[in-house]
Amino acid sequence: MRLFCFENRPRIVSCASVGGGLEQQGPLSSFFDLTENDTKFGLDTWEKAERRMNELCVSLVMQKAKILPEEIDLAFAGDLMNQCTASSFAFRGRDLPYCGLYGACSTFAESLGLAALAVDSGKARRALSLASSHFCTAERQYRYPLEYGNQRTPTSQTTVTGAGCVILGQDPSPVGILEFMPGRIVDLSAKDMNNMGAAMAPAALDTLLRYQKETQTDFSGFDGIFTGDLGAEGLKMLRVLSDREGLSLPSSLNDCGILIYDRVRQDVHAGGSGAGCSASVFCGYLYSKLLDGEWNDILLIGTGALMSPTTALQKESIPAVAHLVRIRRC
Amino acid sequence: MRLFCFENRPRIVSCASVGGGLEQQGPLSSFFDLTENDTKFGLDTWEKAERRMNELCVSLVMQKAKILPEEIDLAFAGDLMNQCTASSFAFRGRDLPYCGLYGACSTFAESLGLAALAVDSGKARRALSLASSHFCTAERQYRYPLEYGNQRTPTSQTTVTGAGCVILGQDPSPVGILEFMPGRIVDLSAKDMNNMGAAMAPAALDTLLRYQKETQTDFSGFDGIFTGDLGAEGLKMLRVLSDREGLSLPSSLNDCGILIYDRVRQDVHAGGSGAGCSASVFCGYLYSKLLDGEWNDILLIGTGALMSPTTALQKESIPAVAHLVRIRRC
Repeated sequence: MRLFCFENRPRIVSCASVGGGLEQQGPLSSFFDLTENDTKFGLDTWEKAERRMNELCVSLVMQKAKILPEEIDLAFAGDLMNQCTASSFAFRGRDLPYCGLYGACSTFAESLGLAALAVDSGKARRALSLASSHFCTAERQYRYPLEYGNQRTPTSQTTVTGAGCVILGQDPSPVGILEFMPGRIVDLSAKDMNNMGAAMAPAALDTLLRYQKETQTDFSGFDGIFTGDLGAEGLKMLRVLSDREGLSLPSSLNDCGILIYDRVRQDVHAGGSGAGCSASVFCGYLYSKLLDGEWNDILLIGTGALMSPTTALQKESIPAVAHLVRIRRC
Repeated sequence: MRLFCFENRPRIVSCASVGGGLEQQGPLSSFFDLTENDTKFGLDTWEKAERRMNELCVSLVMQKAKILPEEIDLAFAGDLMNQCTASSFAFRGRDLPYCGLYGACSTFAESLGLAALAVDSGKARRALSLASSHFCTAERQYRYPLEYGNQRTPTSQTTVTGAGCVILGQDPSPVGILEFMPGRIVDLSAKDMNNMGAAMAPAALDTLLRYQKETQTDFSGFDGIFTGDLGAEGLKMLRVLSDREGLSLPSSLNDCGILIYDRVRQDVHAGGSGAGCSASVFCGYLYSKLLDGEWNDILLIGTGALMSPTTALQKESIPAVAHLVRIRRC
C-alpha cells in the first residue's frame, strides 16, 4: 500500500501561477496568471517579494474558483528559504489551517499528494497546495551574494522565480488526482551542488521502478511524464539509468525545468529548478492541457535534492527524493 | 470540518525517544529510551550527531514494535536545521517513503496528525512520525557560535537535544489518536527572538478557542493539556490571554518545555524548546502515562515560531502556529 489510490478522485477546483521576468520571456509565458518583471515585486527585499508572490498566488487561486478561505480546511505549503518563511509569512492572518512542508524541488508534488489524501479521506472539504521559489532568495542563500556575480557551471540549474497553487475538492471539475506515491530517500553519493540533476535522477528512477512494479504499467499509456526538476543533465541521466535497469521510458518523458525556459535563447544552463518550477509549470501549462482535453492522463514526478549549504561544506553527499502524482481527466 | 476526527482511531504501535546530557539530568530522564552525554554522539559534528540521534530513534521505535521498514508505508519527519537535513539524512538508504515537514517546534504535532490521517484513511498500513532538535546545531544556526558564549535573556528557552518517534497503525494497542486540528498562522507582531513563548501563546490560544467552539468542551475532562513548547513565559502569557477571552483552562495545563527540565536546578531560563522537545516528552513521559492507564485522554498542542534568522534581521515579526492532537486510550 505504498501507492495511495484515491477512489474519491479529489478534483482540481482551481490552479494559479505567478512568475518572474525570466519566466515571462520563456516559452510558457502565456500560461502564467501573472508575471512580474521587478524581481522585488515593488518591495524592498527579495524575501518579501517571494512572500508577495505567494500571497498573490493564493488570492488568485481562490478568486478564480470563487472560493473563500473558510471553505478550505487545510493548506500545505513550502519553499526553499530557510525555515520556509516565504510560505508561513504568506499565510499570516489568513483563515486557513496551515501545514508547512520541506521537500526542496519536490515540495509541490508532496503538497499535492497530501492535499489529495486530506480531501479523498473526506476529512477536508477542500485543501490547498502551494510551492514557490525565487532566483534571488535562493541564490544568495544556497550559493553566493548576487552582487558577487559568480560563474555558473554548465550542469547548474537556474532557480525559477515562480509560485503555483492548487485547490482540491470534491466539486465537479474534469481533472482529478488519481494516485500518489511518496518517494524514498536515495543517495548515490553525488556531491556536486552545481549538478543537482545527477543527485536527483536516481531518486526519480527509484520511484518509477516502484510505480512500475506496483502497477505493471509500461508508461506508454500516459500523455506525458514530467519530472520536476531534473534539468537537461538530470533527465539525460535518468534515461541512461533507466536503460541500464531495463526500464523503457516513453518519448513523452519531459522535465518542468526544461519546459519553462528556452535554453537556446535564455542563459539558464541546464534549465530551471526550485520548488516554484514544477509548481508553476503544473498550475499553468500542464493543467491547461488537461483542462482543454488535449491530454487525459499524466504523471508528475517532483524531485528534490535535500542537502543544505551546511551539509555541502561538511562534504556530505546529496540525498534526494521523488514523489509521484498521477493526474487524470475523470 | 477543520477538526479531523479519526473514526478508525489510528493506534500508537510504538514510541521511542532519545535525549542528550541535559535531558538526562532532568526530571524526565527515566522516560527516555536512550540518553547520551556526548553532544556529538561520538561523531565529528553536531549536525551528524542530530542525524545519528534520529537514526537511533527510528531504529529503536521499529525494534520495540518488532516492525520492519517494509511494513511502514509513510514517514513524516522534520527538524529545525536549514533544509531539515537532520531528518532527510537519517532516512538515506532506508526503505521508507518520506515526506519532509517544517513546523519549527510544532513539527511533532503536525507529523502525528498527518500520520494519523494517512492511517485512518486506510491508505497507509502504518505511518511513522519523527521530530528532533539539538541544542548545539540550533544555537549556532539561529543565534551565535557556541564558542562566543553569549548571554541569554531570562525569557529565552533552551533548545532540547532530543528526538521522538512514533509508529501509528491499526494494530491492537490501547492508545490511539482521536482528533487533529491543524493551526492557523497567527502573528500579533511579537519580534523578540529571545521570547518565542510570547509569539506562540496567541497561536495556542487561537487553536484552543477554535477547538472549544467546535467541540463545546470546557477542557475539564482531559487528564492533561500539554503545549509544546511555550516555556514558562509563554504558558503564563497563554493563561493571561485565555482569561481575557473568557476561556477557562484547567490546572492540568502544562508545557513540555517546562516538564523536561528542572528550572531551579538546571540553567535553562524559561524552559525547553525545539522540535525535539514535545517529540521526546510525548514519546517518553506522556505516552507512558497513557499506556499505564494513569491518564485516559490528553491534548498535545504543538506550537511553532516560524521566523528565520533572515526575517529577524529584516525586522519582521514572528508568525506562529499551533496544531492540536487528541490522544486517548481506546
